[in-house]
Amino acid sequence: MTEDLDARARELDRAHVFHSWSAQAGLDLMPIAGGSGTTVWDHAGTRFLDFSSQLVNVNIGHQHPAVVAAIRDQAETLATIGPATANLTRGEAAVRILDKAPAGFSKVFFTNGGADAIENAIRMARLHTGRDTILSTYRSYHGNTGAAIVATGDWRRMPNQYARGHAHFFGPYLYRTEFWATSPEEESARALQHLERVIQSEGPSTIAAILLESIPGTAGILVPPPGYLAGVRALADRYDILLILDEVMAGFGRTGRWFAFDGHGVVPDLITFAKGVNSGYVPVGGVIISDPISATFDDRVFPGGLTYSGHPLAAASIVAALDAMQSEGIVDNARRVGAEAIGPGLAELAERHPLIGEVRGEGVFWALELVADRDTREPVGAPVIGRLKKELVSRGLIPFTADNRIHVVPPCVVTDDEVAQAMSIYHESLTSVEDDLF
Amino acid sequence: MTEDLDARARELDRAHVFHSWSAQAGLDLMPIAGGSGTTVWDHAGTRFLDFSSQLVNVNIGHQHPAVVAAIRDQAETLATIGPATANLTRGEAAVRILDKAPAGFSKVFFTNGGADAIENAIRMARLHTGRDTILSTYRSYHGNTGAAIVATGDWRRMPNQYARGHAHFFGPYLYRTEFWATSPEEESARALQHLERVIQSEGPSTIAAILLESIPGTAGILVPPPGYLAGVRALADRYDILLILDEVMAGFGRTGRWFAFDGHGVVPDLITFAKGVNSGYVPVGGVIISDPISATFDDRVFPGGLTYSGHPLAAASIVAALDAMQSEGIVDNARRVGAEAIGPGLAELAERHPLIGEVRGEGVFWALELVADRDTREPVGAPVIGRLKKELVSRGLIPFTADNRIHVVPPCVVTDDEVAQAMSIYHESLTSVEDDLF
Ligand SMILES: Cc1ncc(COP(=O)(O)O)c(C=O)c1O
Ligand SMILES: Cc1ncc(COP(=O)(O)O)c(C=O)c1O
Repeated sequence: MTEDLDARARELDRAHVFHSWSAQAGLDLMPIAGGSGTTVWDHAGTRFLDFSSQLVNVNIGHQHPAVVAAIRDQAETLATIGPATANLTRGEAAVRILDKAPAGFSKVFFTNGGADAIENAIRMARLHTGRDTILSTYRSYHGNTGAAIVATGDWRRMPNQYARGHAHFFGPYLYRTEFWATSPEEESARALQHLERVIQSEGPSTIAAILLESIPGTAGILVPPPGYLAGVRALADRYDILLILDEVMAGFGRTGRWFAFDGHGVVPDLITFAKGVNSGYVPVGGVIISDPISATFDDRVFPGGLTYSGHPLAAASIVAALDAMQSEGIVDNARRVGAEAIGPGLAELAERHPLIGEVRGEGVFWALELVADRDTREPVGAPVIGRLKKELVSRGLIPFTADNRIHVVPPCVVTDDEVAQAMSIYHESLTSVEDDLF
Repeated sequence: MTEDLDARARELDRAHVFHSWSAQAGLDLMPIAGGSGTTVWDHAGTRFLDFSSQLVNVNIGHQHPAVVAAIRDQAETLATIGPATANLTRGEAAVRILDKAPAGFSKVFFTNGGADAIENAIRMARLHTGRDTILSTYRSYHGNTGAAIVATGDWRRMPNQYARGHAHFFGPYLYRTEFWATSPEEESARALQHLERVIQSEGPSTIAAILLESIPGTAGILVPPPGYLAGVRALADRYDILLILDEVMAGFGRTGRWFAFDGHGVVPDLITFAKGVNSGYVPVGGVIISDPISATFDDRVFPGGLTYSGHPLAAASIVAALDAMQSEGIVDNARRVGAEAIGPGLAELAERHPLIGEVRGEGVFWALELVADRDTREPVGAPVIGRLKKELVSRGLIPFTADNRIHVVPPCVVTDDEVAQAMSIYHESLTSVEDDLF
């Protein structure tokens, strides 16, 4: 009966559900029926360690009881209400979010997800400055809607030649440096020089904002080298350009800090968020707005909006998730487990496995860069990643893969013990793939 | 204490929540604490008839117990899961939606709301045809994200000169005809001739799709005259162009039919939906895809996606909402109440109130066009609408207003008795405004 449910889920999925970023014909996706913390299971009860946090969004872990209860209670009180109301839960959610932001931010605009957070941040920046161009990096992902996909730099982007008001530049990525750098400090300085030249070449007076993931996520968890983010802020100030930091994936605990930019000596003008803010229990995202930008729209209509802005179920889940993350020390846990278990564990794997070219990350936000050859750093191809994925799943771990990389991105509540289990699964799976390769 | 909650909701809202489509400084929005069916109330217990359905989305009424229970149960089972899984509830939601669609549609792509449904429908149309241009009407609203806002025709749009791949035309609107028509049949024929000339002038081989709200909603509930939609389909066929019907506002019961295009003798190639599909209890939208278009992406990657595509809470609420609407005859109720109570009631109001220039609509989807002068049809200005809104709210009715219009858009579950109450509130409020005006 329960196995029948797995079969039925697969069957309905193949017949009737159209999937993101995929050719549809070959899809045969795994059913997940339930979960708790870092673990999920199918209808037959087979359990998996979720080291993907799905799309790197389940920061608080699966089925956190306080968030589930908040959704239930809000559904029973008032499941939906339009944005043009003063909703108490929505106000409380804004307070919780602003409490984590730097001084000088006192308003939140709520959206349905990450992409439309970016859309609205871009719109605010353009209207505030009266300029068009958004500079963003080639190694980035900002979402799938009209402006967000144009800002995106990876293969999914719309080429610059078709895009109005966008230009792309290269951020720091020492392992595959664009700048022939040999140290993090050099990479940082040279990447800043490159950005300054792009600003000068595009013309500072045409640029509304620089849009950056504080830590580029899907592009490879590219933790910025020392001084880079502060240097970008300095350039933005020098050329009178706004800075939008996209914290959709990196924010709300993933790095072991509330925001990934915390501790980098930088305060942006706009912050976009989604995913971790409520761990995706209800679709939501938004923009945290600094006071000068929100003042722009005190007497001027903001030309943007959406039916579900500030949805009460989303708001209730944000309040519960951020309160639980705070009171249960969940962000601290991410930091500690990252420093004490995941980081050392991955370093040990790298010593034992020639496939691993680089390990980088912090908190519960790590990447293993897999290479066919450590000297040339040639990325492994899709078949190797596909094979590794199968090995991992067959041993009970759901991985996150992107290009030639495994992203090690469990929920922030992951325990030392679960990390230890995961490390042996990574080890066995890498061994099995390497046995065939080398 | 409960009044304190209203005050606190207003205070937090003004301080910390940034609102759609508004200058922020003057906002003082109404708190809503709970609801049931057509009624909502604030924290102090003051009750209002919701003749707005919020943003014309609460088709099933507030707090339908079956939908609330489904959200609660799904939250307790599995609140969130990534799109790249085979989720049983998601599959069941797709089946329910496809069951209402014409033959020849067997896949659903889920998004977070209406705007991103449009984004993805446009993308599918462009990739399927290999062409760029999307034709849409000036009198339309399709959402706020990059491509949706460019397709939009009303004041919120991006002018054509800045938009890549979009052009706008005029749809039928007999009361303010572009075509000097004097009957619905003439308006229909002339609007079709205009559309054909636009197609020929833009060049049929450059046009991917015609995008239309089956009944333009925000633009004024412009029920298409006889033959118009079928005529658009015929033009699309003649010139080998796709037809996307936007059913975000008009779909899932509002017209007294499952889809607004039902009965118009037309089958589109793509259908976009949101709002009524689950009455907005959880943010969701999507695209219903005809088989030839979904086949395009069998072996070719569809380059679009989003973190919350096919969210399980949204899916559970769709299953429960559509099942309840079906088993409780809620769509039939909308049709019957529209024909027997709202239509006649508004016609009577029009006889008594010179402010009303035209009444049009069907089901629970009606507009009162307010004019300063019935002969010139000069629209009333914002102060009159503002004043009328205050009168209505003070008498316990939440109205939907747009430009010079009141849209009479209660939930599909509205009763004859509630319609009668609403009619006297509209009557008294119109009388009070007219007393000062004339
Ligand atoms: C940094 C970043 N920004 C924006 C997005 C888009 O978010 P969504 O998928 O909710 O639209 C993502 C999604 O992965 C992301 O990682
Ligand atoms: C016809 C139509 N399409 C699209 C949208 C956009 O939907 P959303 O606000 O959920 O993005 C709307 C919203 O009112 C609409 O009425």
